[in-house]
Amino acid sequence: MKIVRVNMDTLQASFEEAPKEYELIGNRGLIAKILLKEVPPACHPLSARNKLIFATGPLAGTGVPTAGRLSAGGKSPLTGGIKESNSGGVVADALVEHEIKAIIIENKPKGAGLYALVIAPGKAELVPCDDLKGLGNYDTHRKLLERYGSKATVASIGPAGEMRALAAGIFTSDMEGLPGAVCARGGLGALMGAKGLKALVVLDGGEYTIPVKQPDRLKEALKKYHEVIRSTPQTAQVYPKYGTSPTIMTFNALGGLPTYNFRRGDFEFAEKIGAEALYTTITERGGEGNPTHRCMNGCPIRCYNKYPDSEGKLMVSPIQFETLAMLGSNLGIGDLDAICRLNCLCNDQGVDTVEIGVALGMAMEAGLLQFGDGAAAAGVVEGIGKGEALSRVLASGAVVTGKVFGIERVPAVRGQALPAHEPRAVKGIGVTFSTSAMGADHTTGVTFREKVDHQKPEGQVEASVRAQIKHAAFDTLGLCFFVGTAVQDPMLTVDLVNAVYGTDFGEEFWVQIAKDTLRAERAFNEAAGFTRVHDRLPEFFREEKLPPRNLVFDVPQEEIDRVWSELLK
Amino acid sequence: MKIVRVNMDTLQASFEEAPKEYELIGNRGLIAKILLKEVPPACHPLSARNKLIFATGPLAGTGVPTAGRLSAGGKSPLTGGIKESNSGGVVADALVEHEIKAIIIENKPKGAGLYALVIAPGKAELVPCDDLKGLGNYDTHRKLLERYGSKATVASIGPAGEMRALAAGIFTSDMEGLPGAVCARGGLGALMGAKGLKALVVLDGGEYTIPVKQPDRLKEALKKYHEVIRSTPQTAQVYPKYGTSPTIMTFNALGGLPTYNFRRGDFEFAEKIGAEALYTTITERGGEGNPTHRCMNGCPIRCYNKYPDSEGKLMVSPIQFETLAMLGSNLGIGDLDAICRLNCLCNDQGVDTVEIGVALGMAMEAGLLQFGDGAAAAGVVEGIGKGEALSRVLASGAVVTGKVFGIERVPAVRGQALPAHEPRAVKGIGVTFSTSAMGADHTTGVTFREKVDHQKPEGQVEASVRAQIKHAAFDTLGLCFFVGTAVQDPMLTVDLVNAVYGTDFGEEFWVQIAKDTLRAERAFNEAAGFTRVHDRLPEFFREEKLPPRNLVFDVPQEEIDRVWSELLK
Repeated sequence: MKIVRVNMDTLQASFEEAPKEYELIGNRGLIAKILLKEVPPACHPLSARNKLIFATGPLAGTGVPTAGRLSAGGKSPLTGGIKESNSGGVVADALVEHEIKAIIIENKPKGAGLYALVIAPGKAELVPCDDLKGLGNYDTHRKLLERYGSKATVASIGPAGEMRALAAGIFTSDMEGLPGAVCARGGLGALMGAKGLKALVVLDGGEYTIPVKQPDRLKEALKKYHEVIRSTPQTAQVYPKYGTSPTIMTFNALGGLPTYNFRRGDFEFAEKIGAEALYTTITERGGEGNPTHRCMNGCPIRCYNKYPDSEGKLMVSPIQFETLAMLGSNLGIGDLDAICRLNCLCNDQGVDTVEIGVALGMAMEAGLLQFGDGAAAAGVVEGIGKGEALSRVLASGAVVTGKVFGIERVPAVRGQALPAHEPRAVKGIGVTFSTSAMGADHTTGVTFREKVDHQKPEGQVEASVRAQIKHAAFDTLGLCFFVGTAVQDPMLTVDLVNAVYGTDFGEEFWVQIAKDTLRAERAFNEAAGFTRVHDRLPEFFREEKLPPRNLVFDVPQEEIDRVWSELLK
Repeated sequence: MKIVRVNMDTLQASFEEAPKEYELIGNRGLIAKILLKEVPPACHPLSARNKLIFATGPLAGTGVPTAGRLSAGGKSPLTGGIKESNSGGVVADALVEHEIKAIIIENKPKGAGLYALVIAPGKAELVPCDDLKGLGNYDTHRKLLERYGSKATVASIGPAGEMRALAAGIFTSDMEGLPGAVCARGGLGALMGAKGLKALVVLDGGEYTIPVKQPDRLKEALKKYHEVIRSTPQTAQVYPKYGTSPTIMTFNALGGLPTYNFRRGDFEFAEKIGAEALYTTITERGGEGNPTHRCMNGCPIRCYNKYPDSEGKLMVSPIQFETLAMLGSNLGIGDLDAICRLNCLCNDQGVDTVEIGVALGMAMEAGLLQFGDGAAAAGVVEGIGKGEALSRVLASGAVVTGKVFGIERVPAVRGQALPAHEPRAVKGIGVTFSTSAMGADHTTGVTFREKVDHQKPEGQVEASVRAQIKHAAFDTLGLCFFVGTAVQDPMLTVDLVNAVYGTDFGEEFWVQIAKDTLRAERAFNEAAGFTRVHDRLPEFFREEKLPPRNLVFDVPQEEIDRVWSELLK
């Protein structure tokens, strides 16, 4: 397969053979290796030295379900550390059809011009697109599909990314050609903006497929794989019907749903934004709504959904748990329509709903807005593209918001805001947040499905390490982690690799690729100036009791330090 | 002598005996030792765990000229590292008259109330002063002197400090009872604000003096000391006549005067803001103006001045080189009145003119204001207390301004903006900025008076180390560094200590107290999460040629790394 190397200074793109050593890895693991090799870890994230990388996985397009995740990565403008963020959608599969394993965006354009990187069969070209300047992601996708055909797929930034707002994400095509599949976290949209790249456009017409060495073996492995997904209630019934929204009531019951700027773990209006309310609203309104849907071809899980307004017109797609919580309970907003409107605005402006959700919560507590005031929050989000100063502050994320407004209590680790997993109530995730190279990021190791008493300090370090390894393995193979809810036996996945590549790995392959990824990320961060001192949650999680259960985060720091001194070293 | 320990939680203050080990040190050195012992380096700077320390020096009130510097220190809200910032003025001498070596402000108040710490003979008391909320430093000082008598001295914060703006300083009484002597850098005003402390008020009536063990020896040593000051042109003629303003034309000639946001090293209107223009304007306008003046009793140098408006009414006092450059040439403002008006507003709102000068320069280059537009800059500074979002961003300093507006080119090191010393033209200061625990801070080691070719990379590391040691020694004895321009032989100073304390130290004492201070600061920062990776200037200083001499900073990084691996380890 190929790597496309794009020089934004000379505006040239060239193809090179992907090194053999990268054959069996992709996505997050591939990004970590390339960054460690090619980017000076101490560089300014917005500088020409940083690189933006898009990567696909080794099983994409082989018929393995959910293997078409698209990863974006680079030195994070938000955290100053390494960052990989991945999305579903259809862009990665389209890239693989053009035999593209990864795209490496280098340098910076000389002027302030904006470009689209257009991938056609055997060709990659930078096309000026100043006419898209300032456009939201919805219009950007629409215009690019008009220009390049409805079968093209797109990854774009909104005004937030163009302005290099630290909370900006990258918004990629879902199956309807809408920008609903998001590489949201870590400010990679700001990195794309700093490169002068408004969009990646992948034209239809690629004909490459990754050759399967042992098709019968793959068939057999896939059968087992599907069987496990079908026989696990979460992947067979819950996700397909409700998407990720049931976690609202689960966390509410655990007393761990971020509410009113992480002041409570339960929300008086939780039911109004929970799974049943969401499902009922979508089905009763009908129209363009759909409670269950795929974001990529062949996904058996279908956690995606389409939320219609009261007239049945599509409002946003998808609405997921993290957003329901961070733009809902965390802001005291108990109204699905208000949350979905905010979500739509965030997508259009191009910011991560988690990062700006936390920043909005802090601003509400500081009295700059009122809790529960969805209209005011919407005004702030709409103000990003208008360059309003308050909007720009909040679009710079939680840490900057804390600095500008003199706020001590900042729910963030290593520069990144906490997602909707309260580490006082689900303590293992606090270990993940503390030790992951990505900062506070649930996608690097959720523990709430691990077998451990979530509210006791014991066993959390081991639970987090297990989760971090599992996530890193899935992410390095480009698989959606929701499959991981069902797939407990690593060999179910390793067998897929063995079949496609004719290898005979055992479980050690799985652990190896995961640890390689984690270690490369840690090495990058160390060289970027992070130390063990950064491996900790903000003080208030240890000091401030979280109602209603009055929990604090009490996993001893020396236990947490074992993650990197023993368990992952 | 005593240490006053103030608990802002219980609102109690108590006196304790200063440990004997602190007898011969003060100010910056004392602060470093106390912080390293008492403050967890990884704590949030605005948290109850951080402490704000005021410290005096071992020679204050003994007749040694300039020995009455007041230091403030703590973990810096701006940089996240250790910070000490000192001012002239009369507060330190007043504290010593109450036998106070240091004041340690601990914890935080329970509510949002504001307090004044009032020091009276044998007594220290927290007095609510909510009536001063939101007041500028000028009104704050005026009201406190009305309340506590015109002989009281004050250290206060303005609205910026109350709002915990990261660029907030602490403004202390000069000899006229005006807040012109400033502990400006590192955001210690934000720390004072986080403690709920609006002001420190030292009442008249203290009768303590540090006992002089060998008065005759002191007389002899002082004679030599004064003789050197009198026989050095800089301290005998230049400072007394022009203050610090001649550095404008010196740096302009070297091509190292920060101009137009560090884009040039010379300014077409340099003469308009230089020493002769300043001197002529002050003397011609007369009235309350005065080109030469003391900020503290007995100072033979008199670099302070009073700048009158066109009616002869006092506009600001003093106007110093750093401010002339950072609010002048760096903003393209070639008008003394406009600069002095900005300086006055900064003092009143309570922000560091260097930090906000750099932030304003960045904002001007980003198109948010126009270069040269003093009125617009004044509007931004006035907006701080009004809570205007853009003002709050800029009052958060250069790094935050860069993050909010997606600016790669941020003239700052370790979180703190560069003062008016261009490291491309005076390369030794670049080594100081890179390696000092304080970040970019000229007061930790200016090299432009060192004997070295400033524009060649050779010898800069040694020049910086010499300067850093000298500054640390002066700062640890509480002496104004401007004396250091004359005092080349350390024994001139060590003899003063020997006379006062009856000791018989040689030059090694000088080096010892300096290195102890530097190492304690470095140790604090390491424990706060700083590494060698942070020991570097922003990339653009190495890459971007500075007109008119087209210089880059080219001291090799491995040479710079020797500062802490060999020279100061």
